[in-house]
Amino acid sequence: MKFFSDNTATACPEMLAAIAAANRGPARAYGDDEWTLRLDAAFSEHFGTAVRAFAVTTGTAANSLALATLSPPYGAIFAHHEAHIAVDECGAPGFFSGGAQLALLPGEHGRLDADTVGTALENHPRHLHSVQPAALSLTQATELGTVYRPAEVARLAGLAHRAGLKVHMDGARFANALTFLGCHPGDLTWRAGVDVLSFGATKNGALTAEAVVFFDPECVRDFELRRKRAGHLLSKSRYVAAQLLAYLETGVWKRNAERTNALARRIGAAAGATLLHPVEANEVFVRLGVARRQALRAAGFDFYDWGAEAAGEVRLVVSWDQPEADVQALCAALARL
Amino acid sequence: MKFFSDNTATACPEMLAAIAAANRGPARAYGDDEWTLRLDAAFSEHFGTAVRAFAVTTGTAANSLALATLSPPYGAIFAHHEAHIAVDECGAPGFFSGGAQLALLPGEHGRLDADTVGTALENHPRHLHSVQPAALSLTQATELGTVYRPAEVARLAGLAHRAGLKVHMDGARFANALTFLGCHPGDLTWRAGVDVLSFGATKNGALTAEAVVFFDPECVRDFELRRKRAGHLLSKSRYVAAQLLAYLETGVWKRNAERTNALARRIGAAAGATLLHPVEANEVFVRLGVARRQALRAAGFDFYDWGAEAAGEVRLVVSWDQPEADVQALCAALARL
Amino acid sequence: MKFFSDNTATACPEMLAAIAAANRGPARAYGDDEWTLRLDAAFSEHFGTAVRAFAVTTGTAANSLALATLSPPYGAIFAHHEAHIAVDECGAPGFFSGGAQLALLPGEHGRLDADTVGTALENHPRHLHSVQPAALSLTQATELGTVYRPAEVARLAGLAHRAGLKVHMDGARFANALTFLGCHPGDLTWRAGVDVLSFGATKNGALTAEAVVFFDPECVRDFELRRKRAGHLLSKSRYVAAQLLAYLETGVWKRNAERTNALARRIGAAAGATLLHPVEANEVFVRLGVARRQALRAAGFDFYDWGAEAAGEVRLVVSWDQPEADVQALCAALARL
Amino acid sequence: MKFFSDNTATACPEMLAAIAAANRGPARAYGDDEWTLRLDAAFSEHFGTAVRAFAVTTGTAANSLALATLSPPYGAIFAHHEAHIAVDECGAPGFFSGGAQLALLPGEHGRLDADTVGTALENHPRHLHSVQPAALSLTQATELGTVYRPAEVARLAGLAHRAGLKVHMDGARFANALTFLGCHPGDLTWRAGVDVLSFGATKNGALTAEAVVFFDPECVRDFELRRKRAGHLLSKSRYVAAQLLAYLETGVWKRNAERTNALARRIGAAAGATLLHPVEANEVFVRLGVARRQALRAAGFDFYDWGAEAAGEVRLVVSWDQPEADVQALCAALARL
Repeated sequence: MKFFSDNTATACPEMLAAIAAANRGPARAYGDDEWTLRLDAAFSEHFGTAVRAFAVTTGTAANSLALATLSPPYGAIFAHHEAHIAVDECGAPGFFSGGAQLALLPGEHGRLDADTVGTALENHPRHLHSVQPAALSLTQATELGTVYRPAEVARLAGLAHRAGLKVHMDGARFANALTFLGCHPGDLTWRAGVDVLSFGATKNGALTAEAVVFFDPECVRDFELRRKRAGHLLSKSRYVAAQLLAYLETGVWKRNAERTNALARRIGAAAGATLLHPVEANEVFVRLGVARRQALRAAGFDFYDWGAEAAGEVRLVVSWDQPEADVQALCAALARL
Repeated sequence: MKFFSDNTATACPEMLAAIAAANRGPARAYGDDEWTLRLDAAFSEHFGTAVRAFAVTTGTAANSLALATLSPPYGAIFAHHEAHIAVDECGAPGFFSGGAQLALLPGEHGRLDADTVGTALENHPRHLHSVQPAALSLTQATELGTVYRPAEVARLAGLAHRAGLKVHMDGARFANALTFLGCHPGDLTWRAGVDVLSFGATKNGALTAEAVVFFDPECVRDFELRRKRAGHLLSKSRYVAAQLLAYLETGVWKRNAERTNALARRIGAAAGATLLHPVEANEVFVRLGVARRQALRAAGFDFYDWGAEAAGEVRLVVSWDQPEADVQALCAALARL
Repeated sequence: MKFFSDNTATACPEMLAAIAAANRGPARAYGDDEWTLRLDAAFSEHFGTAVRAFAVTTGTAANSLALATLSPPYGAIFAHHEAHIAVDECGAPGFFSGGAQLALLPGEHGRLDADTVGTALENHPRHLHSVQPAALSLTQATELGTVYRPAEVARLAGLAHRAGLKVHMDGARFANALTFLGCHPGDLTWRAGVDVLSFGATKNGALTAEAVVFFDPECVRDFELRRKRAGHLLSKSRYVAAQLLAYLETGVWKRNAERTNALARRIGAAAGATLLHPVEANEVFVRLGVARRQALRAAGFDFYDWGAEAAGEVRLVVSWDQPEADVQALCAALARL
Repeated sequence: MKFFSDNTATACPEMLAAIAAANRGPARAYGDDEWTLRLDAAFSEHFGTAVRAFAVTTGTAANSLALATLSPPYGAIFAHHEAHIAVDECGAPGFFSGGAQLALLPGEHGRLDADTVGTALENHPRHLHSVQPAALSLTQATELGTVYRPAEVARLAGLAHRAGLKVHMDGARFANALTFLGCHPGDLTWRAGVDVLSFGATKNGALTAEAVVFFDPECVRDFELRRKRAGHLLSKSRYVAAQLLAYLETGVWKRNAERTNALARRIGAAAGATLLHPVEANEVFVRLGVARRQALRAAGFDFYDWGAEAAGEVRLVVSWDQPEADVQALCAALARL
């Protein structure tokens, strides 16, 4: 039973159906097809405001292309030290931006707090000898499966804006965060001050589809050129666009996120005192210790270790297509341990 | 009736079937799935030698990632002045390599010849004030729908190697070239001295699938890190890998290329004296003049102009799913004009 | 007798005197010293308008830092195909800009003409698949020792501005051009539409001192950060600034340029029919043929070959400290040949 | 009385004399002059082994060019979190390397220790999702005026080499460290495992002269091309080379460093309990508190604050040309406070 990652999942049927439906007749290449041309409207509808939305195929591309439009080569990008852009993208922000530097900050449960960010922005030098504060990147849901409340996003974005930075949100698991909070997508983004969002769908049921959503159109032309130049403008764009449209329009984003959030909560409850972070999305982090971790593996569960080897901490991720029986078995096993 | 580009086509049924077949159960992310792990063997079988093959989603990514492994930031990449990397990728080679410069050369019918390349390599300075010759990039089939013979590739690659350069082949339409020549894939690549190949499938029936094929394993680790860093390592890699496997293993590469080559030849024959370049792949270039061009459009044919506006030149591309009736109608219309 | 380059010359006494005079007491580092702080005023006085001026130590740094402020990474920089930025700086513009591409144009006697530039700008695509026209770079005096007239600069700059490009001037030999024309420095620059100038002094008597002069302050902050980041902000900036101040304020720029221009004209006259380009600065290009070239070397003259080996063309450069006897001897030798 | 920085100092007479002596007759440009051609021999003599040495004009250029030869664009460079490359060079390592990331580590008194480095290297992931450990950069003397012992350098370099990293030393104040230790230059560098050294002279009496010294010739060609491309190859190279030769050959490096070290020790002794770090070079760090700091300024002393404003910490730097009376007065003032 596999709890490795939501990346190991299949694509949900709505995605394959959308691809099959788009597979009719010729369509203009490089995004001038009817599916891609509908993205702006579909995302504007979803977010309750006029946005520009662009399809890409990976979260790394979404994050780094977005950040490269916000930061000059001599910029500093503030982020949590466990952020995906810091530890899992092989330095992609530095590549796409031409050398911008990450300014990494601590924060409990994977979340940045206003004190830490405020102090960091205040103390960061602005003279010529230093990289220049350019962007704040928030991960929603965070790498530790927790979720920023709208007021927290607004407070952090406010600090960033007042200091002259733009705000990026890495929403690889945006649907999980949104579902957990039960709020409007706009409340978590543009109403709270987010300038550009990496909107993930792949981890929540798509084959391979992510969007970059601009709430501020200023950087759009720059983005489009950078995307092309980075090989992320697809010639047959319709197949990714169709996935994104189906993701939004069939409500699969919500259905899948509700399911994985609920299953993760059950695991969290079963984990009891070993739980490391509140379960607010589809990830559960527990400290088992080395022996119990080994016992869990021996019982047929697959997952990644997390943090230092000796601590015996693990990450358990629920995928949209996770059999409920897997979760039941896992809960039982955790209760036994 | 659309003759814009082979990028406007649908995906062929084998591709959707392959994706559906791969959509079963969990699979390790980021290329550790069974489909991706079979790429090396499948491409080694195809090319008749041990190769390393990697999936990406665009030709720009394939070309630029390959070139970035061959050229230092201060390198010069020699290519035809109409090459896709020179005119259609928004400077991608410069981005991926950290600033390598293109050294663009002329050549009849889109092909570089040995005299031009030999002279250019000989005359290019090697001192510190100049970018350093690093790679030769050949497009097969060329941007003008012509094809290098194996002996031509071997001669050009020999010149490059003797001068210390590596050889890249942009094979966005490799299947068309191969089918036209009727030779073994190895004859056009490693036996002729090609070091790395951008192997295209998207233009010939895939949804979105390209491969980078290394005949020399030396650059593979560098490539893998650059690919990840550029956001071109897919988390759900299986869906692209499955396309590439089906493309090779069902023979769809050959079937589609044979069809489009044959249809293009018919158009070429109908074009008669207006034909600009030999028709050796699925593209036909004709000089109609402005009036006849307009007449052809008025008759219901869509296509791109080529070259300077006033010359009245056009490009006609046959897609794998082009209705035969389109081609018949086009031939008739060309004959009438 | 050496006619290699004006880079082989010594520094003139005014420069060493300026350095010695600046070598008194502590001074704030990184350009906050009294000499550097006077640069804006001194260059504003020279150019007859308010400018911002910055010291660097090489022409490559001046050119590339200036161009990087004018061109995005996906920009195209239009220049003569023999421009120093194209052939003598190891791809520096690509490095500093993050991958901008040079669009190289022909032009008689090293000069671009309005027809060529106008056509190139008109034909350059603006769509996403192409690098975007960003800057026009003019070399004054050109690499072939010729000089643009103010009206020519104005016409070219007008074309560039109307097409949305900024205008850079590589003035490594600006003093020679200015002296040849006898016009006001403003006539050749801001009044003619130049946005930023690489102002050379090293070739004309300085130890090592170049300036970047902004006629439009918009890019200045970007420039300052790029300069620091590239290691071109000197900690003991005063010693370069003092050279630039002395260069302008003692009139040494004019005295040296008048001398070298006059001596070059004498050589040009002696060259007679072998002269390849009008002599308008301190460089003379002659076609001797291989035999006479060898004879000239045998007679004790050192110089660089130019162009293809077999043509027997040479470049003869007069330095500010060139003994007049060298020139007399050279004229005599040329007359004899 | 100014204790801002050793960058605010003048150049010492030996430097101006060397420049004047080099200012005779024509010399080949771009480093083919007799002074530059002697650098390898002079530095080889100094270090007691065959080295390659290259002149540049700033410490930022020396550090970043060196690091760019050691780290691929996807590399991680390990350094102390207060290192000059981390906080004072506007992200230069990221620019020169094409996006390498700094991995910053803590360490008492500005020094890295073997435990911290060993653990960091051990824990750093090597998989494709992470930047790859490439180089360790040590600052000698450190930013806090302390000095690594040869055995410490050897231990750290050993850890780095065993983990596949190369070792860079930022020796902006190398002479101060060497003088403090009284050891042979080779003991602090190649015998201890340093691969490339940024050898500073500017802070210790030169006008503007730094060297990059390679103990391993492997990266030299790459370095030379990167230097040219970055605008750091001087056309009139002789004037910087002459400074470096005089710096080594007249013993001015030792005389100046001995003087500033001794004066700094006197200040350190006067500082007594307020001293923050051992005084092992020409810098003294003291915690005065806000009130006493203000009093010291009021008494006519200029210096930079260090660290957080409220802590009242200051840095006092002794320059080679610091009047002894300044130091006497400062010691008296510190004793009074």
